[in-house]
Amino acid sequence: MTRNPDVPEAAVTRLAAYLEALERLETQEVATTSSAEIARHAGVNAAQVRKDLSYFGEFGRPGLGYDVANLRRSLARILHLDREHLVILLGSGRLGTALLGYPGLAQRAFRVAGVFDSSPRVIGQELCGHRVLDVRNLQEFNREHEVKIGIICVPTAQAQAACDQLVAAGIRAILNFAPVSLRAPPHVLVRHVDVTRELQALAYYLAD
Amino acid sequence: MTRNPDVPEAAVTRLAAYLEALERLETQEVATTSSAEIARHAGVNAAQVRKDLSYFGEFGRPGLGYDVANLRRSLARILHLDREHLVILLGSGRLGTALLGYPGLAQRAFRVAGVFDSSPRVIGQELCGHRVLDVRNLQEFNREHEVKIGIICVPTAQAQAACDQLVAAGIRAILNFAPVSLRAPPHVLVRHVDVTRELQALAYYLAD
Repeated sequence: MTRNPDVPEAAVTRLAAYLEALERLETQEVATTSSAEIARHAGVNAAQVRKDLSYFGEFGRPGLGYDVANLRRSLARILHLDREHLVILLGSGRLGTALLGYPGLAQRAFRVAGVFDSSPRVIGQELCGHRVLDVRNLQEFNREHEVKIGIICVPTAQAQAACDQLVAAGIRAILNFAPVSLRAPPHVLVRHVDVTRELQALAYYLAD
Repeated sequence: MTRNPDVPEAAVTRLAAYLEALERLETQEVATTSSAEIARHAGVNAAQVRKDLSYFGEFGRPGLGYDVANLRRSLARILHLDREHLVILLGSGRLGTALLGYPGLAQRAFRVAGVFDSSPRVIGQELCGHRVLDVRNLQEFNREHEVKIGIICVPTAQAQAACDQLVAAGIRAILNFAPVSLRAPPHVLVRHVDVTRELQALAYYLAD
């Protein structure tokens, strides 16, 4: 599944930030740019931008910088963002609802194909235009829809079970919001968005 | 504000993951552990664990591994998690509400001191035990409470204004959930939790 094992995951995440920077520059009708300008928009340094881009090819021309539209298209293609991606949402609580209402998903061509929950209280309810489905029907659902990306926003105690259910349904990439490390087979990529961990890292930088 | 400029931010974030691993091991009454075991829990490799820990001191004993309780206490102290941290939440929409209800915050000794919004529709309403306050009173509020950490969960278009308001109120570290890069003075650390960016990075790993 991994395209180039030498590319650090953090570089891939930064690539998405560079793409956002380029889109902003394009909106401002900027035609050419520099690693310094991209870096400023993305909150890193210019050397980091050049290093990260070098993993994926030769984009700029020495002394001339980068063509904004070309680089934007290249990064979108590298990140597979030149196509729509379906996602399955597991967990329809407050966080799941927040994600469903998050305009960034559709803007980025991520379309929620199904929302699943295990609680009889919410199964069948409508949530932001989606009927909440029974997680027991997840495998059957995905035999038809072949969704590759799953988002876990269930309570911590249910997160590993949710992960197992997504894996069994053929999901290949999981975004996990539960504050716990999940076990998944090597062919499934799991990324954590751990709010508490981010806050803990922030606390480190506070003066004594 | 930065404690050691040579420590990469990503290492600090991983330190929080190691701390979680150690807490889990302590719950399981494991007395000593190895970088390999910590790595397995945190989803990285053992060399990364040893490298990251080496930024902060000498913790293990060659051939004997790490004392779980000692290392757990050391990491909590390094991350300043041996004390309570107050946070201010700016934005009381779905995401803000999800965060307010997130049990991980209190478990980690992050206490929400105040919830602020700019919309007259929600100011004064009660939300998970907090009365939503007018963002125009943020500076005055923080002269008294001296909160150092702010969380931005307002719509994208309002995120920079929210950041400016937090900076003006004396906030030193900001966790930003809006999908946009924010400008802040150098003494203020801003970290992004960008759901879309994480999803974009996931998409990279999907096979063609």
